[in-house]
Amino acid sequence: SSPPAGHLMMMCRHNVKMSDMSPIDLYDQLTAQGETVRSLKAQRAPKTDIDAAVQLLLKMKVDFKRVTRQDYKAGCPPVDCVISNDHEEAVDGDDQVDPWNVSTTSAKGVDYEKLIVRFGSSKIDEELVDRITRITGKVAHHFLRRGIFFSHRDMHQILDAYENQKSFYLYTGRGPSSEAMHVGHLIPFIFTKWLQDVFDVPLVIQLTDDEKYLWKDLSQEDCYRYAVENAKDIIACGFDVNKTFIFSDLDYMGSSPSFYRNVVKVQKHVTFNQVKGIFGFTDSDCIGKISFPAIQAAPSFSGSFPQIFSGRTDVQCLIPCAIDQDPYFRMTRDVAPRIGFLKPALLHSTFFPALQGAQTKMSASDPNSTIFLTDSPKQIKNKINKHAFSGGKDTVEDHRKFGGNPDVDVSFMYLTFFLEDDEQLEKIRQDYGSGDLLTGELKKLLIKTLQPTIAAHQEKRKHVTDDFVKHFMTPRKLDFNC
Amino acid sequence: SSPPAGHLMMMCRHNVKMSDMSPIDLYDQLTAQGETVRSLKAQRAPKTDIDAAVQLLLKMKVDFKRVTRQDYKAGCPPVDCVISNDHEEAVDGDDQVDPWNVSTTSAKGVDYEKLIVRFGSSKIDEELVDRITRITGKVAHHFLRRGIFFSHRDMHQILDAYENQKSFYLYTGRGPSSEAMHVGHLIPFIFTKWLQDVFDVPLVIQLTDDEKYLWKDLSQEDCYRYAVENAKDIIACGFDVNKTFIFSDLDYMGSSPSFYRNVVKVQKHVTFNQVKGIFGFTDSDCIGKISFPAIQAAPSFSGSFPQIFSGRTDVQCLIPCAIDQDPYFRMTRDVAPRIGFLKPALLHSTFFPALQGAQTKMSASDPNSTIFLTDSPKQIKNKINKHAFSGGKDTVEDHRKFGGNPDVDVSFMYLTFFLEDDEQLEKIRQDYGSGDLLTGELKKLLIKTLQPTIAAHQEKRKHVTDDFVKHFMTPRKLDFNC
Repeated sequence: SSPPAGHLMMMCRHNVKMSDMSPIDLYDQLTAQGETVRSLKAQRAPKTDIDAAVQLLLKMKVDFKRVTRQDYKAGCPPVDCVISNDHEEAVDGDDQVDPWNVSTTSAKGVDYEKLIVRFGSSKIDEELVDRITRITGKVAHHFLRRGIFFSHRDMHQILDAYENQKSFYLYTGRGPSSEAMHVGHLIPFIFTKWLQDVFDVPLVIQLTDDEKYLWKDLSQEDCYRYAVENAKDIIACGFDVNKTFIFSDLDYMGSSPSFYRNVVKVQKHVTFNQVKGIFGFTDSDCIGKISFPAIQAAPSFSGSFPQIFSGRTDVQCLIPCAIDQDPYFRMTRDVAPRIGFLKPALLHSTFFPALQGAQTKMSASDPNSTIFLTDSPKQIKNKINKHAFSGGKDTVEDHRKFGGNPDVDVSFMYLTFFLEDDEQLEKIRQDYGSGDLLTGELKKLLIKTLQPTIAAHQEKRKHVTDDFVKHFMTPRKLDFNC
Repeated sequence: SSPPAGHLMMMCRHNVKMSDMSPIDLYDQLTAQGETVRSLKAQRAPKTDIDAAVQLLLKMKVDFKRVTRQDYKAGCPPVDCVISNDHEEAVDGDDQVDPWNVSTTSAKGVDYEKLIVRFGSSKIDEELVDRITRITGKVAHHFLRRGIFFSHRDMHQILDAYENQKSFYLYTGRGPSSEAMHVGHLIPFIFTKWLQDVFDVPLVIQLTDDEKYLWKDLSQEDCYRYAVENAKDIIACGFDVNKTFIFSDLDYMGSSPSFYRNVVKVQKHVTFNQVKGIFGFTDSDCIGKISFPAIQAAPSFSGSFPQIFSGRTDVQCLIPCAIDQDPYFRMTRDVAPRIGFLKPALLHSTFFPALQGAQTKMSASDPNSTIFLTDSPKQIKNKINKHAFSGGKDTVEDHRKFGGNPDVDVSFMYLTFFLEDDEQLEKIRQDYGSGDLLTGELKKLLIKTLQPTIAAHQEKRKHVTDDFVKHFMTPRKLDFNC
């Protein structure tokens, strides 16, 4: 069975796995044990008794440090527990995964099984996929069938409530750091659109233009402009305007007292120690970065959108996102019960690989690192032929003889994202593995899949008018019954 | 002549006083000197040459640390300069003055002359008071004549511009931590009302209900309610509704994208190191406190109120406030030029003493520590007779013989705030000092002065309707020509 969601980060409050004791309890016990040792020594007790008491004291100090990440100091009770810290925890050989860095040394990409253990989330297993199929009455999306969305928190709880006629809402987002979006950026939106369709629920999409202003050397005007441009690509994914609210932080923060109030609530309940542990911030970081995580947290609470939820603060939230965004929501889930709100549930996706290989996410600044939504059919063809890392053998002879390796072949990986036909995909995998399919032929199949997909996107985006964008971005009532 | 305003805090950028060099320049010189030493040693130069080079190196390291507050480390240029830090700088015997603590060991109260030097502000001297009188054509307020407003930053610049038909706006505020306001809370508002009248300028008043929520064990609802209640007392001071905008942060942040954009601008340009130095924050403080200073800074920029200034970002701001708020505005003045805005000018007041003595500010939680705006004539009489610290002698005989000390007598201090007649006040000082006036008689004079003042305030407050408050608190155009 899967561990309780979020248990790693809640360690300092419910340290179930460690010792079933809070840091304060541990501190009190430790202090008492220290006094026992002193008193045994004062009484000149037998050496074996003293040694045993000292051994226990030392063991308790180790436990204390493991739980609180602080050294025990007599007279200083732990005032501030550090939430489980990926920045300190990652050991050599672990992949680095946080909102700003994703890297691994393996050509197959990040080890997602390990990440589930490290982040304390749950695996999306066959049982969960089957349950979604049963409840929605729709074939599960191929992102679910193929493990592209591979991890979750509390998804069963969402489904339990849904079966009892209690609805939920979806929340996802994007950091608008440039006008150029690539195919990888579409993954969460394609999946969110499917979730919106099969569950028939409202959706809020946060464009963190304030975050991009804080992190990048960009003006607020640029970040806001990118937000609006990105909104067009997002809208082109086909979201229902009657069920979708897209917002720029720079705009919506100044348009909704309820949103700001929830941001301040989160900001009151998270310390610098905690964001330092979770995000790796330092004393040299600006105070805007330090307080930003609260702004990404607040849309997880339905009270941030009174115009949508008529002031209800108890509508459950489900967040589909790439796994690198999880630190924000581990923090959010830790804070939620302390401010009287529901923890958001999550569905995590793997990363979309760069053409050059799965060791890293793509970079929007390198035009050859992936396929952009503005690429022409010719650019798509050239990029794939020239840059897509191949799992094939060096010569046609060797390839025919030994077969290629689809697990590291980027063209094959891209097909798992964009080729919907399971049988065809499986045949390609087998043919490539056996050597029947050459790298050039595999690339051609990808080109023929992506060219019409991108062309269709461009066509849909062309019809997204400024007025339509404005409609999506206006705070308003949505179609929502629950 | 007074030092350039803000010079202490700007040390790391214009370290005029220290060495006329920036931290980066110092770092480069230090690095070069390190290489000189190494090269002298490698060449086996004469010992005296090496010693001299090492001595210079050590001296430079001391300078570097003094300027940057960081140890020099080869290969690590100073990335983040700490602004001059009162928390570290205050030496034994210095008064403590910051937004949360004011304390001194002297019965006369804080040493304000010393504070001017420590904060790097300028004294409000006779010349400045005369100039204000000349320009406005009005007798200077007794708070100015008596040194209650005793310090300033850039007030001459405000007057230069005013003489050239360039107007300005006023900004002051209050942290609404309870319903109960006392007479001391009125000081900045009484003075601000006078400034508004004689200069005929618009005014914004910030009620930091978000700050109180972050710092105190209060709900947002309570803080907001206190803000509205406090607004009534502020309005009762007689502000012109056509020239005054009062706002709660919890409301206005969510009503004005321009305000939020300026907050984020400030947040991008201030590091945790800086707020740690200025305000003494620690790693255990919540991220809301850490980022709050930007929220108190933003109203210093006219662009935060597009409805008042028609989007103009170049209207100069003048902030009348108690000196304990200066750290916020030292920070603001440091940031302003880096984000393309004007530095706000300031007028600083001394603290209103507690009835028990001038060693500390009053506490809103101790009903006997001062006169509250809700006190009845009888309560006023009893509190003053019972609690007002006396500078008189122990017996009537001694008092008649040696005289009392008005400099430590709280009743006399209160009269300097509330008795407008200069001649009468001077006569009281002399009579008390000579022993002609007894403590009981002095207290009676204060009672007779305060009772009608408070009664008049209560009467005016009674007529402040909810609609009138709403009018003041609605973002709107004000009467403003410049």
